[in-house]
Amino acid sequence: MVKEIMADTLVTDEKGARILLAEIIHTDYLFAYIGRIIYGKTGLQNVYVFENNFWGRMLFINNGLQFTSRDEFIYHEALVHIPVQASPENSVKRVLICGGGDYGASRELLKYPQIEEVIIVDIDPQIPKIVEEYFPELLPENPKDPRLKLIVADAYEMVKRYKEEKQLFDMVIIDSTDPDVSITGVTQELSHALFGEDFHRMLYEICPKGIIVQQCGTPFTMQNILVETYKTFKKVYPEKEIYCYRANVPSFGGDNAYLMRCPYPNPETPKWEEIPNTYYYTHEIHKTSFGLPKYWREVLK
Amino acid sequence: MVKEIMADTLVTDEKGARILLAEIIHTDYLFAYIGRIIYGKTGLQNVYVFENNFWGRMLFINNGLQFTSRDEFIYHEALVHIPVQASPENSVKRVLICGGGDYGASRELLKYPQIEEVIIVDIDPQIPKIVEEYFPELLPENPKDPRLKLIVADAYEMVKRYKEEKQLFDMVIIDSTDPDVSITGVTQELSHALFGEDFHRMLYEICPKGIIVQQCGTPFTMQNILVETYKTFKKVYPEKEIYCYRANVPSFGGDNAYLMRCPYPNPETPKWEEIPNTYYYTHEIHKTSFGLPKYWREVLK
Repeated sequence: MVKEIMADTLVTDEKGARILLAEIIHTDYLFAYIGRIIYGKTGLQNVYVFENNFWGRMLFINNGLQFTSRDEFIYHEALVHIPVQASPENSVKRVLICGGGDYGASRELLKYPQIEEVIIVDIDPQIPKIVEEYFPELLPENPKDPRLKLIVADAYEMVKRYKEEKQLFDMVIIDSTDPDVSITGVTQELSHALFGEDFHRMLYEICPKGIIVQQCGTPFTMQNILVETYKTFKKVYPEKEIYCYRANVPSFGGDNAYLMRCPYPNPETPKWEEIPNTYYYTHEIHKTSFGLPKYWREVLK
Repeated sequence: MVKEIMADTLVTDEKGARILLAEIIHTDYLFAYIGRIIYGKTGLQNVYVFENNFWGRMLFINNGLQFTSRDEFIYHEALVHIPVQASPENSVKRVLICGGGDYGASRELLKYPQIEEVIIVDIDPQIPKIVEEYFPELLPENPKDPRLKLIVADAYEMVKRYKEEKQLFDMVIIDSTDPDVSITGVTQELSHALFGEDFHRMLYEICPKGIIVQQCGTPFTMQNILVETYKTFKKVYPEKEIYCYRANVPSFGGDNAYLMRCPYPNPETPKWEEIPNTYYYTHEIHKTSFGLPKYWREVLK
C-alpha cells in the first residue's frame, strides 16, 4: 500500500488523472498530495509538475520537491535578499547563480537596478523550459531582461573555466538540489560536487571579495547536509567569515539552512536603505534570520 | 484510496498492526506516517498514541497531531521560556496553565527554582494519564514536585472561579488544542472559548500585571487562528502590550505563532541572566523569535 503511492511509480501514470502522490521526507514519514501530474518527463533528471489545491503547482526533480507556487517566494527571497542587503550598497554588480535554472533567484536579483549582470549556470535544459511554461511567476519581471544570461552547463565545469579565464564576480549563489545524502541523515557522504571543497576553492578565486551563499537543506530532517557543507566552508574560508541563517519554507518540512561566506562585518545588519518589492523579506526578518536554535548551534560547532 | 488512510478510520484498527496513518493538513495535503497505534480511545476527545520511526511517539487528539517525542521540546520551550525570560527576574511566582495536561509546559516552568506554584487546568482526564504512561519525558524532572497542581476542569469555568475568588497569577499560559476553524482558514469563526474575548477579560483580571501567552497555531496553514486571536487580544489588552513571536515546530508543518500580552518593556530582550537546561531556547533565539515574515506582519495589521 505504501509502495503504490510512491512518487517514482507515478511518472508513468496517465496524465491528468487525480492521484495521491507521496514524497518521502524521512524513514516512515511522507508528505502526500492529492492532485494531477500536468507534466512528467524522464531526462537528465526525472522532472514532473504536479497541481494541488493547496500548494498550487509543485516542481519535483528526482522525486524530491523543489518548490511550490505557494511558498517559493520565501526560499528565494531569503536566498537572495539577505546576502545582497548584507553587502555594501552598490557593491553587487555581477552575480553568478550555480543551479537556479528555475529563474527564482534571478527574479529577486534583477529587482535591484544596481545589479548589472546575472548569470545562471544550470546543468539541466529542461528546468528553464518547464518554468517558462508552468511557473511564469518565477520569471524576472522583464523575462527578456538584457542583464540576465542563462547558460546550460555543469556549474562545476563552468566555474573552472571562469577561474582559468580569471573572471570575477561580486557574489555567487549556489541554488542547487540537495546533495545526495542518506535520508537518515547520519552516515552517508555528500556526493554532489557543488557542495565540495574543490568547488568552493574555485569559487573563492572567482569571488574573492564578495558573498558566497549556499542553500543547505532542512537540517531537522537532513542534518548531514548542513554538517558536511559547514565542514567544507571551514576548510576553504576564514572561520570568522562563515555565517548560517534560516528561513521557514513550509513545503520543505522545516526551516531551510543557508551557509554564507561573508567578508563584510555584521551581515545580520542590513546595509541597504531600500528594499525592492518583497513578500517575505524585510529588514526585521534580515536581522532575526541569523538567530539559530540551540540544537543547530551544536551542529555548527 | 485516500479515504482508506484517513486517521479517523484507524482508531478501531487492530492494535499493533503496522499501518499508514494520514493527517489532513489542508485541502488535498496530508502528512502520512507509517507505524503502529499503541493506544487508542474514544472519550471526551478521541485520543491515540502512534509510534513512528522518525518522530518517535506522537499524540493525536481528534485526529490532529498534538506533539511528537522528537520536536515537542521546541514548542514547549518557546511557549514557556520566552515569556518567563521576558519578565523581570524573580517576578514569576505563581503560574496558571490553561490546557497543558500533557505536562510539557509545566516541565519547563518547574526548571526555575524561583517559580513557587504551577497550576495546570485541563478538561480531559485522559491526557495526563496517557503522558504518564507513554511520554514520561514530558513530566517535570521531579514528577511529584510539590509546586505542581493538576486540576481536571474546564479552564473557562476555573478561571471564572479564580476571578470571583479574586485570585491572582503572575503569568497565564494558554496551551490548548487549536480552536475549531475551517481547514481552509478563511471563513469559519473561532468556536473555542479559550480564544474568545470573555475568557481574556477574565484572564486580565486574574493576571493584571503579568504576561498572558497563547499558542495560535501555524499561520501558514491556519492563518485564521492568528487573525482571530489577534482581534480578541486587541479588544481586551492595550495594543502596545501585544506581541507575536514564532518557533519552527517541524511536525506542525510550519512556524507556530504565539501571541503575548506583555506589560513589560522590550520583551524581545531577555531579562534573566541564567537559563535552565534547554535544547531549543537560548538568549539568541529569544531575541530573534519576534522577527516575523512580511506576510505575517500584514495579517497582524
